[in-house]
Amino acid sequence: MLENIKKYNVVLASKSPRRQELLKGLGVDFTVLTKDVDESYPSKLPPIDVAPYLSWKKAKAFENQELPDDFMVITADTVVIAGDEILGKPKDRDDALRMLSLLSGKTHRVVTGVTIHTKETSKTFSVVSKVIFDLLDCQEIEYYVDNYRPFDKAGAYGIQEWIGYIGVSGVEGSYFNVMGLPTHKLYKVLKKF
Amino acid sequence: MLENIKKYNVVLASKSPRRQELLKGLGVDFTVLTKDVDESYPSKLPPIDVAPYLSWKKAKAFENQELPDDFMVITADTVVIAGDEILGKPKDRDDALRMLSLLSGKTHRVVTGVTIHTKETSKTFSVVSKVIFDLLDCQEIEYYVDNYRPFDKAGAYGIQEWIGYIGVSGVEGSYFNVMGLPTHKLYKVLKKF
Repeated sequence: MLENIKKYNVVLASKSPRRQELLKGLGVDFTVLTKDVDESYPSKLPPIDVAPYLSWKKAKAFENQELPDDFMVITADTVVIAGDEILGKPKDRDDALRMLSLLSGKTHRVVTGVTIHTKETSKTFSVVSKVIFDLLDCQEIEYYVDNYRPFDKAGAYGIQEWIGYIGVSGVEGSYFNVMGLPTHKLYKVLKKF
Repeated sequence: MLENIKKYNVVLASKSPRRQELLKGLGVDFTVLTKDVDESYPSKLPPIDVAPYLSWKKAKAFENQELPDDFMVITADTVVIAGDEILGKPKDRDDALRMLSLLSGKTHRVVTGVTIHTKETSKTFSVVSKVIFDLLDCQEIEYYVDNYRPFDKAGAYGIQEWIGYIGVSGVEGSYFNVMGLPTHKLYKVLKKF
């Protein structure tokens, strides 16, 4: 499957083991190559546009590189939007506790933006999922933060970890998008590339 | 967490590695002990009641056993309901192809029934999730069946496998329920046990 992209040397520009696992699950052969990118964004950007903007910015970091002609770079960024507040990665333990208290008992949105960048073209898209959290008590939030240390995760949680098992009553939309990569949409875009 | 059930000797009566992984993810210590149970059900049973009925039937198989007083047996059954047809495990390759063609481009329901059985009490509940499949082409269906051989899976697919990555555009409700165990609801029931 995806025979049409076999001519490319695919690079996933993400340190996230979840994204690596998901792209592998699509049957895509790739290598991982990451660059440090300043993850700031214009303060007036609507929350829904932040993840696609950051995925585009991460791809732009490859633009002035001397890349071989057959390169395809895939970048992604995931943000959690609670009300109108964007939750990125928590700064510390207190910030993680604050974020999870904010998500407890509510529905929030998770947006993953993806950019596919080659010599000829650059495509950016994003997918929105809703995640419904049941009420979490302080004990559960502290247990999760202290045992799972979700400091590398937007919104301070991984849906595929204990907190997702016990706390998420439902998802509306793509579950894999919440994990960090909208596999279904990415497959469709790659199929027509 | 779930300190209240630490006094039990928990047994998961399921061969499914997905269920074993999900129960482990809840932080429950358990052993696996399965019994062969005839998985037939009354033909007049409403489709929505089949999975909880079968989980109850699987638990009943332990009733006449000389079990220690501290035993807690957890059984589960998952069925896929397409329209009003119940899709169990496919009989063979052709049956798997037929099931996936039936699910392609449509939304179906997945019901997992769970029974928690101890010396004193027996509780059965079920959770329904909706799964939205995008259109799958014949090539994709054949590729999946021949490479993943989903003959042990209700509806002939595993949402956590390639077909779930590329074909499922969304879920409404619990994703883990589709995998075979409604972790969130199970945690809530165990917490109050």
